[in-house]
Amino acid sequence: MGCSLKPTEVIQSVLAGRTFQPAKAEGKAFAPVNIALCKYWGKRDTALNLPVTSSLSMSLGAIGAHTRIAPVDGPDQVWLNDEKLTDADPFVSRLRAYLDLFDPAQHYTIHTASDVPVAAGLASSASGFAALVLALDDLYGWSLDPTSLSILARLGSGSACRSIYQGFVEWQAGEQADGMDSYAVRLDADWPALRIGWIECSSAPKPIGSRAGMKRTVETSALYAAWPDQVARDLAAIKQAIAQHDFEALGSAAESNALAMHATMWAARPPVSYWLPETVVTLRAVWQAREQGLPVYATMDAGPNVKLLYLADDRERIRAAFPQLHEVSPA
Amino acid sequence: MGCSLKPTEVIQSVLAGRTFQPAKAEGKAFAPVNIALCKYWGKRDTALNLPVTSSLSMSLGAIGAHTRIAPVDGPDQVWLNDEKLTDADPFVSRLRAYLDLFDPAQHYTIHTASDVPVAAGLASSASGFAALVLALDDLYGWSLDPTSLSILARLGSGSACRSIYQGFVEWQAGEQADGMDSYAVRLDADWPALRIGWIECSSAPKPIGSRAGMKRTVETSALYAAWPDQVARDLAAIKQAIAQHDFEALGSAAESNALAMHATMWAARPPVSYWLPETVVTLRAVWQAREQGLPVYATMDAGPNVKLLYLADDRERIRAAFPQLHEVSPA
Repeated sequence: MGCSLKPTEVIQSVLAGRTFQPAKAEGKAFAPVNIALCKYWGKRDTALNLPVTSSLSMSLGAIGAHTRIAPVDGPDQVWLNDEKLTDADPFVSRLRAYLDLFDPAQHYTIHTASDVPVAAGLASSASGFAALVLALDDLYGWSLDPTSLSILARLGSGSACRSIYQGFVEWQAGEQADGMDSYAVRLDADWPALRIGWIECSSAPKPIGSRAGMKRTVETSALYAAWPDQVARDLAAIKQAIAQHDFEALGSAAESNALAMHATMWAARPPVSYWLPETVVTLRAVWQAREQGLPVYATMDAGPNVKLLYLADDRERIRAAFPQLHEVSPA
Repeated sequence: MGCSLKPTEVIQSVLAGRTFQPAKAEGKAFAPVNIALCKYWGKRDTALNLPVTSSLSMSLGAIGAHTRIAPVDGPDQVWLNDEKLTDADPFVSRLRAYLDLFDPAQHYTIHTASDVPVAAGLASSASGFAALVLALDDLYGWSLDPTSLSILARLGSGSACRSIYQGFVEWQAGEQADGMDSYAVRLDADWPALRIGWIECSSAPKPIGSRAGMKRTVETSALYAAWPDQVARDLAAIKQAIAQHDFEALGSAAESNALAMHATMWAARPPVSYWLPETVVTLRAVWQAREQGLPVYATMDAGPNVKLLYLADDRERIRAAFPQLHEVSPA
C-alpha cells in the first residue's frame, strides 16, 4: 500500500527537520541483544528491510552493544572491542554505508564494545545498529520517540528495530510500501524466570550470510510460501504463552518456529544449510533431555549454534545436562 | 470425486469375478526395489493409501524381493530370508492383515527373500508387497493387467504400486475417492548410465515409522501446505531431465525434492527427524564433492541413510570419494 521511499527519504521523514548540529561532544548509548522466539526470515523490501512477516523477540538485559560516537573532520575511525578496524573491514563499510544515509559528508570516531562473541550468532548486528541509532540520537539531541528510533535501526539491520527495547518485543511487519508502519513495540508483559543459553556448535565463519540465505530462500524455496502461515500460528501461540507464563507452550512454539525456518532453507536451491553434525547432536540431546522430564526447548538463528530456553528453577539440572551451556540471559 | 470404497471392495472390483481356485501348487514372483526421485509423502486416504501428490521412481533391476506362496490348511507360515518368523512379528501381522482383504479364511506358506538389507531404508516393503501381489496372480492364474496389479499392490504399501514395473515409473496420484485412477505407469524412457548407491548412516531402528511420520507431518506441519507445489515443480523437471538425459537437472531436482520432504518433517510438531549427525556429514560430503567438480547428488527417504545419484562414467571417482558406498543400481 502507498508508495515506496528511498532509505534517505525515510530518514528525512523520521527526522522531520532535526539537524546534524551536535548537542554534545560525544553521543553514548547501549542496546541489548535480542533473541527471536518467532523468527524474522524473508524481506518484502530489501532496501528498507521490510519483512514478510511480523516477529517476536526477547531482549537480553545488560548483554548487548555499548557505542560512543563523535564527529571528526578526518576519515572514519572505528574501534570494535578496543581494536581499531581497517577501512576494508566489512563492519566498517557496512557502518559507513548506513551513516551515508544520514549525511555522507560527516565522518565519525566510533567505539563499540560488544558483550557477546561475534561468532556466537547472537545477533550482534542487531544490538550494534540499535546502539548506533541511540548514540546518534544522543549526540545530536534529537529526542526521537522509540517508534522513530526503531524505524531508523531497521534501515541498518532488520532485527535491530527490536533491540531498541528491553523485554518482549514484537516487530510489526506493517503493510505500507514506505515501511512507516513497520517497527517494533514492547509487549506489556514480563517473565523474569525465563532463561536463554547457547551451545556453540562451531565458531567458524558461516558458509552463507543471513542476508544472502534469506534472499535465496525467498526466491527459490517452494516451502517458503507456507512460512507466513507458520509465523501467524506461532506468533499467536507465543504471545499467549508469554501472557500466561506457559513455558511448554512457549517452548514448543518457539522450537517449531526455528525448525520451520531452517526447513524453508533446506528446500532452497541450492539448499541453505547452517547445520553441522554438532547441531544435530545438540538438538537430539535437547529432545532426549525433554523426554526424560527436563523442560528445555531449542531455538536457532541463521547459524549452526543452538540456543536453549529454560526456566530459572531448572537452571542446575540444565547445567548438569548441558555442561557446555553459555548462559546469556539476565541472571 | 466419486464415492470411496473399502479396500475389500476395491479388490472385488479389480478381481472382477476371478476366483481363489489355485491354478498351480505354488505362485512365484519377483518385484524390484524402487527409489523415488520425486517422493511420495502424505496420504489423502489412509485406508486406500491414496497419495496427496504423484511421485516418480527408478526401479533397481534385479535387486528386490523374490516371493513364493502356497495355500495351506493350517496357520500361516512365513519365512523371510530363510528365517521362519513368529506370528508376533510385525512383518507377519502386516502380511496377514493384507491377505485378509482377499480372503480371511485362506492361509498360506510364504517364502520371501530380499536382496537388500531391511535396515537400509531401501523400500523393502514396496518390493515385498509388489512381489506378493504378483505371486498371488501367479498362484490363482488371474492374469491381471499391470494397472490392476499396481492398484492391488498400493493397498499393501503405497509405494509398492511402483514396484510392479522396471525402469522409470510414475505413480499418478489420481483424483477419484475410490482410487481407481491412482496407480503407477512406466515411463517410455530409459537411461542405462544412471546409477544409484547408498551410504549407511545408521542401521538402528527408526525412531518413528514412515507411516506415522507421514501422518504427523500432514496433520501438524504448516510447511506441508507447500509440498504439492514443490512436487509439481520437481516432477516436471525430473521427467524432462529423464527424457533429455540431463543429469544435473535430474540430480538437482531430486536432491531438492528429498530435502524439501525432510524439511516438511522438521516443521512438524513434534518434529519428525530421521537425521543423524552422520546424515549431515554425508550430505556435506556430497556438496563438497560436487563443488570440486564431481557430478553427484543426494536423495533420502524416511530414514537417516543417504542415497547417491551419479553416472556410470564417474563410477571410479565416486568410489574413490565415497569408499563406504554400497552400489545398488544395475551394474
